[in-house]
Amino acid sequence: MESNYSVALSATELSRVRFNEDGLVAAIVQEVGTNEVLMMAWMNKETLEMSLGQGRTVFWSRSRQEIWRKGDTSGDRQFIQSAAYDCDGDTLLFTVIQEGAGACHTGAHTCFFRQFGSE
Amino acid sequence: MESNYSVALSATELSRVRFNEDGLVAAIVQEVGTNEVLMMAWMNKETLEMSLGQGRTVFWSRSRQEIWRKGDTSGDRQFIQSAAYDCDGDTLLFTVIQEGAGACHTGAHTCFFRQFGSE
Repeated sequence: MESNYSVALSATELSRVRFNEDGLVAAIVQEVGTNEVLMMAWMNKETLEMSLGQGRTVFWSRSRQEIWRKGDTSGDRQFIQSAAYDCDGDTLLFTVIQEGAGACHTGAHTCFFRQFGSE
Repeated sequence: MESNYSVALSATELSRVRFNEDGLVAAIVQEVGTNEVLMMAWMNKETLEMSLGQGRTVFWSRSRQEIWRKGDTSGDRQFIQSAAYDCDGDTLLFTVIQEGAGACHTGAHTCFFRQFGSE
């Protein structure tokens, strides 16, 4: 599967994204179809441009301090269908087609599999 | 309208929430029914407990450095239907019934009303 999504990040839109003191912006990933929120991770300017250009989510791994092209290792790639930024520019929202079992490193489909009040 | 949702934050679940160096955790808000992602904001331990206990979203305003009981001023309250935490405990997901016009201070229904590639 390949992505048909490709957007060049314009200077206008880039100027509206507010990266934090670490140069990162929060990125929410939602699945097309199920509408499930799958995960939240972080992007820097470079991985935001990669994501928009390649049509796949690419994050900045804060724990490993490196570029994290989601699915390169696990096979569970995310193909972008839309990408939005919020009113104050500090959070992004991607809708994706999720490949493979799911988004979570635990094997769960969504990272949000534990409800408060369960334990 | 009142909320029927009320959960006491257990020590076990609290121990799984990873607050950042500012004592905050990211909270995604999704609308029940439409499944729209409405906004992302931040909670500290106190406002997380308030949210779960009162069944309404209560955030920590980073810009004003104060508790932000969403809707107390605008009327656009959010009544919690479910609350989850993610695999590594640094992001929360609330599903809510959104009162009023919407979640965004601009008057938009969702804060994510601008798509990349539009300008």
